[in-house]
Amino acid sequence: MFFKKCLCEYNGARYSGWQFQDGCDTVQERIETALEKLYNKKIRIAGAGRTDAGVHARGQVFSYNTAIDRPNHAIMCALNSMLPRDIAIIGVEDVTQEFHAQFSAVSKTYSYLILNRQARAALEHERMWFRRVPIDVDLMCAVLRPLAGTHDFTSFCVKKSLKKNSVRTVNFINAAKEGDCIKIRINADGFLHNMVRIIVGSAVQLTYEGGSPVDMKAALAARDRRAARATAPPQGLYLEEVLYKK
Amino acid sequence: MFFKKCLCEYNGARYSGWQFQDGCDTVQERIETALEKLYNKKIRIAGAGRTDAGVHARGQVFSYNTAIDRPNHAIMCALNSMLPRDIAIIGVEDVTQEFHAQFSAVSKTYSYLILNRQARAALEHERMWFRRVPIDVDLMCAVLRPLAGTHDFTSFCVKKSLKKNSVRTVNFINAAKEGDCIKIRINADGFLHNMVRIIVGSAVQLTYEGGSPVDMKAALAARDRRAARATAPPQGLYLEEVLYKK
Repeated sequence: MFFKKCLCEYNGARYSGWQFQDGCDTVQERIETALEKLYNKKIRIAGAGRTDAGVHARGQVFSYNTAIDRPNHAIMCALNSMLPRDIAIIGVEDVTQEFHAQFSAVSKTYSYLILNRQARAALEHERMWFRRVPIDVDLMCAVLRPLAGTHDFTSFCVKKSLKKNSVRTVNFINAAKEGDCIKIRINADGFLHNMVRIIVGSAVQLTYEGGSPVDMKAALAARDRRAARATAPPQGLYLEEVLYKK
Repeated sequence: MFFKKCLCEYNGARYSGWQFQDGCDTVQERIETALEKLYNKKIRIAGAGRTDAGVHARGQVFSYNTAIDRPNHAIMCALNSMLPRDIAIIGVEDVTQEFHAQFSAVSKTYSYLILNRQARAALEHERMWFRRVPIDVDLMCAVLRPLAGTHDFTSFCVKKSLKKNSVRTVNFINAAKEGDCIKIRINADGFLHNMVRIIVGSAVQLTYEGGSPVDMKAALAARDRRAARATAPPQGLYLEEVLYKK
């Protein structure tokens, strides 16, 4: 058996997310269809993270195994020639049998882009969240800071998706201005459903309200989705990188 | 009369360029159509530069005049609500009668993006030139350097578009690696037709051939389009900024 780890990039705008769902156009299904053509048999892939509908990836990882030996570079080129142009395989490598894209991951980094100016985007309209009212980035950084560390993130999870363990460790979280954009980056050992989008939505709202880090701490401590604010839309979110033990 | 200067951004992918052409879908025509709705009369605009089909802009400038007084912010918002989502007005300001978007311009900056990796783009497929073979960016910088300064750029112009005066001053030109991308930036007092795209195409080709600054100097000195190399495709080119006297 050959065990493969693949890195992929996609624009999530026209997909119902990563994860296979009957009757929906998903990234996973598109990749499995291409793999089936390549290997002449059905191949199941395991993704590192389930990105929602409309969410993008620059560094999604998936793994699969196969009995057929093919050079990694040839696999990448063949898949890219068969995949739609908004999905690309950007790397293929050999891994051991123990590797699993989801369970072997140590941490993941997401970024969230906000276009913060008076005029809507023409070049990146499906790729950012457009907020017309100016955001105080220093205040936003301060408001985000209490989320770093190990906490119960129940307040920042879609209620119906809550699992037994909602404790996660945020290794870093920050916001920075880049031209007309604000880029929020967050790395954690795992993410609850919609966690980044609820964090971003809450941080923007608290910043607009002139809130403080104390308000974010209170939202976290409440362990109740109603204590946080609205969920930011999917088109600003990017799965940037999945990190594994060396 | 009121004299207006507008800044605009567009994704050129689905337009036949900036300049009005009968029977073609152009950015200028789309903006004039929106202005006509806003003012209830036909308004002609003058653009700073004629970008080709498929070329993008982050900072195109156009000017127009009108007898009707309207607040600049309201003009911007009204136009953005009427324009297609791949065109946006990002600023409107008052200027004097003497101002003309094209003739008052002191210099313009263009950038050109090359995606230089093994896999094609999924996120920016209409927004970069994809070159699979690795480019030596240091060599590319060296090859571009002889173009800085005042020269006759006949070799870097579409032959049929040549005007009497083909001397231009390039104030700066450089290439830098940004992740998987190479970004070329060039500022000049004016540009001949396809000048940036022929410069980029030539620089990439010379870099691949292991050429040197001497080869670029020779291409420049020849004053003959055939001495330069192929024209790079439009989708990597951006009109970044138009500069005016303060």
